[in-house]
Amino acid sequence: MAHHHKLKIGVMGSASGPQIEDPVAIQKARVLGQQIGKRGHIFINGACPGLPHEAMLGAKEYNGLTIGISPAFSEYEHINEYLSPHGHDMIIYTGMGFMERDIINIRSSDAIVIIGGGIGTLNEFTVAYDEGRPIGVVTNSGGISNAIEHIVVELCQREMPKNLVMDDDPIKLLDKLEMVIKAYPLPIREDGRVKDLKQGRG
Amino acid sequence: MAHHHKLKIGVMGSASGPQIEDPVAIQKARVLGQQIGKRGHIFINGACPGLPHEAMLGAKEYNGLTIGISPAFSEYEHINEYLSPHGHDMIIYTGMGFMERDIINIRSSDAIVIIGGGIGTLNEFTVAYDEGRPIGVVTNSGGISNAIEHIVVELCQREMPKNLVMDDDPIKLLDKLEMVIKAYPLPIREDGRVKDLKQGRG
Amino acid sequence: MAHHHKLKIGVMGSASGPQIEDPVAIQKARVLGQQIGKRGHIFINGACPGLPHEAMLGAKEYNGLTIGISPAFSEYEHINEYLSPHGHDMIIYTGMGFMERDIINIRSSDAIVIIGGGIGTLNEFTVAYDEGRPIGVVTNSGGISNAIEHIVVELCQREMPKNLVMDDDPIKLLDKLEMVIKAYPLPIREDGRVKDLKQGRG
Amino acid sequence: MAHHHKLKIGVMGSASGPQIEDPVAIQKARVLGQQIGKRGHIFINGACPGLPHEAMLGAKEYNGLTIGISPAFSEYEHINEYLSPHGHDMIIYTGMGFMERDIINIRSSDAIVIIGGGIGTLNEFTVAYDEGRPIGVVTNSGGISNAIEHIVVELCQREMPKNLVMDDDPIKLLDKLEMVIKAYPLPIREDGRVKDLKQGRG
Repeated sequence: MAHHHKLKIGVMGSASGPQIEDPVAIQKARVLGQQIGKRGHIFINGACPGLPHEAMLGAKEYNGLTIGISPAFSEYEHINEYLSPHGHDMIIYTGMGFMERDIINIRSSDAIVIIGGGIGTLNEFTVAYDEGRPIGVVTNSGGISNAIEHIVVELCQREMPKNLVMDDDPIKLLDKLEMVIKAYPLPIREDGRVKDLKQGRG
Repeated sequence: MAHHHKLKIGVMGSASGPQIEDPVAIQKARVLGQQIGKRGHIFINGACPGLPHEAMLGAKEYNGLTIGISPAFSEYEHINEYLSPHGHDMIIYTGMGFMERDIINIRSSDAIVIIGGGIGTLNEFTVAYDEGRPIGVVTNSGGISNAIEHIVVELCQREMPKNLVMDDDPIKLLDKLEMVIKAYPLPIREDGRVKDLKQGRG
Repeated sequence: MAHHHKLKIGVMGSASGPQIEDPVAIQKARVLGQQIGKRGHIFINGACPGLPHEAMLGAKEYNGLTIGISPAFSEYEHINEYLSPHGHDMIIYTGMGFMERDIINIRSSDAIVIIGGGIGTLNEFTVAYDEGRPIGVVTNSGGISNAIEHIVVELCQREMPKNLVMDDDPIKLLDKLEMVIKAYPLPIREDGRVKDLKQGRG
Repeated sequence: MAHHHKLKIGVMGSASGPQIEDPVAIQKARVLGQQIGKRGHIFINGACPGLPHEAMLGAKEYNGLTIGISPAFSEYEHINEYLSPHGHDMIIYTGMGFMERDIINIRSSDAIVIIGGGIGTLNEFTVAYDEGRPIGVVTNSGGISNAIEHIVVELCQREMPKNLVMDDDPIKLLDKLEMVIKAYPLPIREDGRVKDLKQGRG
């Protein structure tokens, strides 16, 4: 099925921890966001600090439309309790906390990109994997970014999805990601009830 | 707290039933959407057919940014199983079905407007009421549109919210709605745990 | 399909407001709970105060297994912030707030019974209606209890479900409810995507 | 805060993949369930096949109360589309699919036990970690069971929670788990908004 809308690219990665102080990861996040904006895609993140925020700033440099999916119920709670940024063009306040926010975040995105990443990002990866989303991984950006195949194949004993791509360079990564978005249609449903996806899932 | 973003106005109303064939309701829905677009607000609906779709078409006439919150998991499911329109600038596929979609729909909106309305719209009204959202009602648009006070005060024995406004005319209604959005801050949390709202809730 | 499990009956009704001080409603709620326990059904409510709590006390008199579906994330939050009772045999802490709790509450029940009822109960009714659950209404128990047909037919212009029963007397109501649970199979899915229910929905 | 209710122990692990054919894992799952039943705890799982089902059969041998949290909306969907077992004393049909089911599953449990485990179990681990639940890991049961510390410390660069315990032997594991449940109170809320937990989280 042809995409009727602008692509929505969700950027997920470390919002805290040592990963957000790594200058290489910060630089890659910025370039990643710039490219998303420059290519005319819609930029989505979890309205959180850290690397996804750095990417958001990059997207705005190129006037990308930026959407944040917040765990908070309100702007007040978002700013004062979650201590989170709100410079996006639009924030959706789910009021559902981190865990459900992660799910909506992923479902709102035609593809996700992982950069750096601790436990929260690993949660998002497992959701995106199980729901068959196209996934891009910015390798050498710290955290889990170099361990995805190790986690999937060696630890979990599962197969790597065909619609998962990796690259050190955010620009090349987005090239690859645009290709797998086209090549592998999204699953129709979130789970294995109906095997509606012939390709694209490991 | 000052609003940092463009206002997001969610239009909720009949997606099926006799209400969607009422020419007066259709016309009011169209004008409502036009006004939301013209005023530079972000237009949100449930990506459903019927009156909210008519309003979406109005918003697009004025180049309003239009967002649909879909119950479906995917574009395929949205179009082929929910038989729903997808002409929005962006659709968020929640994959959560109607009931949870309704909740996210309301939380995504700074204020909601009700037009016509059967059981589904009544569901959305009860969520918006309990969560203290500013509510506008287009009266004389069929369904529950003339019965809101009756339902709240007589049937439920509750008080009318101060941030609920009504008008026959979508233009005057939006004037009033913009005023109560300014006058009554949103609740901080979705429920009564913390009484964080001094005004605006009945 | 034969029921493989004990029936789960969810009691929903006023947790606050004038309805919870009506001695007739309190008495009916108590008898309702007693009957659920006596008949060996599993008793479910929203772990809230008011009429559903009164019914829970009745179920416990007959050693019914009582389950509460709490909006809170933890026992601490349940007791200290929601100020809610916790005498159930088991409480499920959804951590999802009132609105999503209502949905899970209904889906956890093979049938729901409405007693009294303000805006929150009306929310639960609209969810149960849209999802095709068998519904029992204890009439003359205050609030919306005598207005269900008025709301559905006159205000919303929809049809009354065939699996909705009403009675003044909780004992007779449960007799009727057990019959419609048997007569009308539950929908397979929560929404209208697939028309999997031939009977039982208006 | 003293626990007012029977402990609810959620068993999460491989429902598919090579892990469910490992005789050692199957045997450990069975003993784990037996112990939960024998000790009078409430047994919870995701109403799925595989190792959690094996544990459920063990719990029933000792007349444990067994609860399944199903991703399906209905018994029909549970059996015919998810192809899942339903021998529990009670099944809660969330109708929310795997991802949200996982969240409710964890929140319904006072502590979770991981056995074997692929991507889905890793998802559940990240949720339980982020939400501060007591976690027991049956080591040498395949999948991720021997890699938890590696994942948390080396890959994610986070700290091991103090309320996470491991053992090869399900009996010793439950001894340890009962101790950390007592020693470390549950978080009050699902996220880091309010730092309400002084201990128990890494």
